[in-house]
Amino acid sequence: MPSFRITLSYDGTDVVGWQRQASGTSIQGLLEDALAALEGAAVAAIAAGRTDAGVHALGQVAAFTLTRPIEATVLRRALNARLPGAVRVLEAVDVPADFHPQFLARTKTYRYRLWTDDAVSPFERRYVWHVPGALDVAAMHAAARLLEGTQDFAAFQASGSETATTVRTIVESVVGRAPLGDRAGNARSPIVEYTVRGNGFLRHMVRTIVGTLVEVGRGRRRPDSVRALIRSRDRAAAGPTAPPSGLFLVRVDF
Amino acid sequence: MPSFRITLSYDGTDVVGWQRQASGTSIQGLLEDALAALEGAAVAAIAAGRTDAGVHALGQVAAFTLTRPIEATVLRRALNARLPGAVRVLEAVDVPADFHPQFLARTKTYRYRLWTDDAVSPFERRYVWHVPGALDVAAMHAAARLLEGTQDFAAFQASGSETATTVRTIVESVVGRAPLGDRAGNARSPIVEYTVRGNGFLRHMVRTIVGTLVEVGRGRRRPDSVRALIRSRDRAAAGPTAPPSGLFLVRVDF
Repeated sequence: MPSFRITLSYDGTDVVGWQRQASGTSIQGLLEDALAALEGAAVAAIAAGRTDAGVHALGQVAAFTLTRPIEATVLRRALNARLPGAVRVLEAVDVPADFHPQFLARTKTYRYRLWTDDAVSPFERRYVWHVPGALDVAAMHAAARLLEGTQDFAAFQASGSETATTVRTIVESVVGRAPLGDRAGNARSPIVEYTVRGNGFLRHMVRTIVGTLVEVGRGRRRPDSVRALIRSRDRAAAGPTAPPSGLFLVRVDF
Repeated sequence: MPSFRITLSYDGTDVVGWQRQASGTSIQGLLEDALAALEGAAVAAIAAGRTDAGVHALGQVAAFTLTRPIEATVLRRALNARLPGAVRVLEAVDVPADFHPQFLARTKTYRYRLWTDDAVSPFERRYVWHVPGALDVAAMHAAARLLEGTQDFAAFQASGSETATTVRTIVESVVGRAPLGDRAGNARSPIVEYTVRGNGFLRHMVRTIVGTLVEVGRGRRRPDSVRALIRSRDRAAAGPTAPPSGLFLVRVDF
């Protein structure tokens, strides 16, 4: 009974998210269907983090157990041959049967991309949030840094969520203009990125942080107001939930 | 009667090309429809180069004349408000009534992108040609350089084309691995790029050059065999036509 850990990249634009839903295409459904075709029977796959509808992944991690022996590299190729181009298996490795990608994940890294120029590149429109106009990136970075540490992030949790605790540890929380390397060869990248790494994230937490940071960038909030916002534990005091298109699960560390 | 020159970026994946066709969505059709809505009457737009179905543009140039006065920046915003996100007007400037983007273009620059790794990134799949396996980039570059100069490119013209002359001047023809800056943060870019600038291009010329260069990269042709290929003027002696997805019209210089 070989068990595997795979690293997945996917374009979340046209899917309902990682998790199977009553209707619509899910990444879990696509993967489990491809696995079932290999196995000749249903296979359950577990992910490190359940990305929401429209959220992308550069390095999602999933795990599953098969009954038939198969080499990891053969498995990777067989899955890519069955999956649509919007989902790619970047790596497959053997793991012990008790490997659990969600419980064993030490940190997850997310990145959120903002497009700050007037016209969004046709090649980036599915992968950014369009925030035209001047953004004070230094103020956003100062505010983002205040989220680092072990704190109660209840103010950034989608209302109606239920979790045992809203305390999480954020190891890194930074904002900066993206390095150049876009196809148009501009002098300054029109993309501002928020990168956050932590041991766990509440529902919509990254997107609510970004909605708040954009208000800081537009001068509607002072960077140090984030301290009081965290203390308030009040979702209504935070900014709006940023759209899913700009969000990427970048990597999972074990 | 104000005349305008606009710079356009578009994702060519889902269109039949620049030119209006009997059926299907064309960039010209989208633009002329948006212009007709502003003008209240039909407006004809001319492009510097007619891109084929599936070919993208970072800096296509088009021109047209309106009867109603309108500021160039207002025009740009009004067009972007009416066009789908797959087409963006990056710039609009006033030009004399006799400006003709095709006849006045001195050079056009095209870029072709090859994805050389095993699994194509879901975010690049529409914008590359997947060529897995080792490519000798130095050999491709050496072959590409032999295309520079004023030469007869009949061997690289789609069969059945009719043109007054198949002589063109290529100012720059180079191959190299793309600079890093992709979202995944790899150590080496999986993208190999061919960049070509010239005073004009025959039908399918860039894509036929790329099909030939890939055969050089795979060791199936020697770089210096390109000399004899050019002399042959024989389309059947060149490589296959590369798919449109990897091709970008980068810029037009006047």
